[in-house]
Amino acid sequence: MTNSDISTAASVSAGTPALLEAYSGRRPERLPVWFMRQAGRSLPEYKEVRAGTEMLDACLTPELAAEITCQPVRRHGVDAAILFSDIVVPLRLAGIDVEIVPGVGPVIADPVRTPADVARLTAHEPGDHAPIAAAVRAVTDELGTGDGPGDTPLIGFGGAPFTLAAYLVEGRPSRDHLAARALMHADPAAWDRLLTWTADLTGAFLAAQVDAGVRAVQLFDSWAGSLSVDDYTARAAPYSARALDHVADRVPRVSFGTGTSELLTVMAGHAEVVGVDHRLRLDVANERLGGEVPLQGNIDPALLTAPWEVLERHVRAVVEAGRAAPGHVVNLGHGVPPTTDPAVLTRIVELVHSL
Amino acid sequence: MTNSDISTAASVSAGTPALLEAYSGRRPERLPVWFMRQAGRSLPEYKEVRAGTEMLDACLTPELAAEITCQPVRRHGVDAAILFSDIVVPLRLAGIDVEIVPGVGPVIADPVRTPADVARLTAHEPGDHAPIAAAVRAVTDELGTGDGPGDTPLIGFGGAPFTLAAYLVEGRPSRDHLAARALMHADPAAWDRLLTWTADLTGAFLAAQVDAGVRAVQLFDSWAGSLSVDDYTARAAPYSARALDHVADRVPRVSFGTGTSELLTVMAGHAEVVGVDHRLRLDVANERLGGEVPLQGNIDPALLTAPWEVLERHVRAVVEAGRAAPGHVVNLGHGVPPTTDPAVLTRIVELVHSL
Repeated sequence: MTNSDISTAASVSAGTPALLEAYSGRRPERLPVWFMRQAGRSLPEYKEVRAGTEMLDACLTPELAAEITCQPVRRHGVDAAILFSDIVVPLRLAGIDVEIVPGVGPVIADPVRTPADVARLTAHEPGDHAPIAAAVRAVTDELGTGDGPGDTPLIGFGGAPFTLAAYLVEGRPSRDHLAARALMHADPAAWDRLLTWTADLTGAFLAAQVDAGVRAVQLFDSWAGSLSVDDYTARAAPYSARALDHVADRVPRVSFGTGTSELLTVMAGHAEVVGVDHRLRLDVANERLGGEVPLQGNIDPALLTAPWEVLERHVRAVVEAGRAAPGHVVNLGHGVPPTTDPAVLTRIVELVHSL
Repeated sequence: MTNSDISTAASVSAGTPALLEAYSGRRPERLPVWFMRQAGRSLPEYKEVRAGTEMLDACLTPELAAEITCQPVRRHGVDAAILFSDIVVPLRLAGIDVEIVPGVGPVIADPVRTPADVARLTAHEPGDHAPIAAAVRAVTDELGTGDGPGDTPLIGFGGAPFTLAAYLVEGRPSRDHLAARALMHADPAAWDRLLTWTADLTGAFLAAQVDAGVRAVQLFDSWAGSLSVDDYTARAAPYSARALDHVADRVPRVSFGTGTSELLTVMAGHAEVVGVDHRLRLDVANERLGGEVPLQGNIDPALLTAPWEVLERHVRAVVEAGRAAPGHVVNLGHGVPPTTDPAVLTRIVELVHSL
């Protein structure tokens, strides 16, 4: 599905939510805004409902995941919900021993380092997506299906194959992903098997969400920025494309990573929308993309704790820089830091909607 | 001092070490090579002499620092030594409570968050550089002054003001340096005071090394890649320039950071040589720099554990890509990982010298 196909589709009405208009490369009356990690750590109501439940258990408890997903929509009036999930949820569903250790991040019990490890891992089939589908349905029960002007569309969540593979190989978050990048070059065949598997795992996870009613999907490739453009193009992006192929022609697809200023055109090869982090101005990103790709981003999360006048100036500059793009969904350049005052996010939504 | 000044200086003889030839924008017969963090964790002889001594104490014990500095020259036959040190050594010398916690990195007892913190910190004067000067002299006693063909020049070490400030503000290594980047925008005056202080601290540290006999200096801005080009240009690079001004016209100056592909031309504004990490091909970097700046880099550290034929192909590609630049010093794109087999580094040196 190309953007022009979406633009001319008869099903698009004037009542389409602003998010989907912008993802389709149009300029809705209201500039849409949401925040990566809006469902989570910055909200007191989140801390309250999450208390006593481990992260991955919360993601897999449909009513809890749905409640958490809806909280920022109620509080901030953002233009989209994003399913409360984690990049490693599909691993847990597939029966891989993984847990999220507070203060550390995802920890894999048996890291994948050798061809034998890859063979052992890739014997796992994607698991039962019933709890994910149930969470999606519970969200759309509250927020609407995304077809009417009063609806708040729900975005599906998936981890990109490279970033997922990097967790599997490193066994935990790392700074340079050396072990993963070493495997990529040392054993291209094992790398291909591993990435094909993570691509189809994430692809099935996204397809289950689309089946259940999400109106867009976003692929999170948090660590793509550690790759050269050659490595990303040859050994990561093809698997992102494979993952997103599972939902092609069904919903708009967003590809996001950090430190990806050199990779944007490659990312646009597998997604209708490209997310940009705080490092690159949106007008420059738009120019690199030939002015043909709707953009999402890119308020610097570091400025969320700055005085309001500093933050306001920055948000206005982001909106201004985004005007050149064929569509713009305002977002942060990365996730909401846990220390963020939620009132600041609400104020940003009000500001963006006034512009 | 511009590169052409160095090139035409009467003091440059055919016997000048290859490193200094390349840093001066020429093409010596032998392609010079050294490795960031070559003095350290990958060497058994390093582990032996370091046993029982804390990192910062080792840096400040002249005979030990000199021994560690010389070890990789003896073992690998690299074309340069770099003073064994750490970005926070000048903080310790200035009386700031800092220690390097194994497995964590530098930890600052009292992080700098407020204007009052900045005032308290910047009241500290640079400390006594005698142990640094003694280490430099001990190294040049063994390796020569860098004036003859048999000498191995010693490179001075310094942390860039931004990265040093980021440690001071965060209190420890962090992923996104949010607190530092927040202060940068929230209180530009406090930021300016802090960065002016870190610049002069590093500048004095570098000048002490040049006084004692180093023949080049390298400024390590490990975290510059977290900044947009606008922020780097306005709020980080001017302080790198200020730090390096302390040794201007005395030795060639290398500016290095990771994830800096968008920042190279700004970096070239304050240094004669630019270091490039593994993310950007050297021919592309050279093009962005107008073909006028000697480059250093950029073997991907991830490939050090790959089979030799994979690594060899990569090293040859790096050398090939670097041929366009007016000078090229082969190096890694980042520091030697602790798990590296030192025999691999020796083999790279032999390969590079054969090309």
